[in-house]
Amino acid sequence: MMKLALEEARTAASLGEVPVGAVLVAGDLVVKGHNRVISDADPTAHAEIVVMREAAQRIGNYRLVGASLYVTLEPCIMCVGAIVQARIQRLVYAVQDPRYGAVESMLRAFDLNVNHKPEICSGVLHEQAGLLLTKFFQARRKGEVPKWS
Amino acid sequence: MMKLALEEARTAASLGEVPVGAVLVAGDLVVKGHNRVISDADPTAHAEIVVMREAAQRIGNYRLVGASLYVTLEPCIMCVGAIVQARIQRLVYAVQDPRYGAVESMLRAFDLNVNHKPEICSGVLHEQAGLLLTKFFQARRKGEVPKWS
Repeated sequence: MMKLALEEARTAASLGEVPVGAVLVAGDLVVKGHNRVISDADPTAHAEIVVMREAAQRIGNYRLVGASLYVTLEPCIMCVGAIVQARIQRLVYAVQDPRYGAVESMLRAFDLNVNHKPEICSGVLHEQAGLLLTKFFQARRKGEVPKWS
Repeated sequence: MMKLALEEARTAASLGEVPVGAVLVAGDLVVKGHNRVISDADPTAHAEIVVMREAAQRIGNYRLVGASLYVTLEPCIMCVGAIVQARIQRLVYAVQDPRYGAVESMLRAFDLNVNHKPEICSGVLHEQAGLLLTKFFQARRKGEVPKWS
């Protein structure tokens, strides 16, 4: 699942979006998605939220009870909040985000007074996910990737 | 603007949704919305996010630079994160949320290492907004309002 999420992250990079991808698994349903903030002109369209919204709409319930969410980067506070709202059972992510990560880096948001806490597994394929982000930002600083914002 | 947001909150209540309403003002654009989590089967469809997403789509940019956001309840961590992503300039809210509020109650999220901080004004029409929430939850506990989740 994390390999699928990494493919999605590469798709995001090819569109000039920060390369983050996600996969949500709920029973037989598998939803893939990537960061689409610029493409969709949607400040909330991080990869995690893209797949949670699509899965919830397909299931017909905002609560994704029993679902597993795989994402290539540690979620920010917005996405941690959405994970709580959606009652995600299991969160798996690849690489830490030392600056904005809200699971274990900038903040440990699930240790706050939130009304749901998923199982958490981190570090899966973190080297590939980290390298993709590093290369993207290096290229963007050199002006090699369109910066639309 | 807060009176308009309160009207939206009442609409949410009539639909069995937790009564929170929001209004976003960006130049000549005024977008109204309310909590639609259950109706839309969308875990992220809090009032704040509903209006930010619609405004961003109408403007064609995920950054709502210079925008003011009025909401009847103190935003949660998900919505604070979205406010940061959208670069909202001014946040005005009515009543505090002692349990999940992430501006000044459960957490002071804008004091963390976030890359944007709006001007904040709280307490506007807080009595009306608070009463609406109290009445809604009292009624729901008595089974007078459909609980769809």
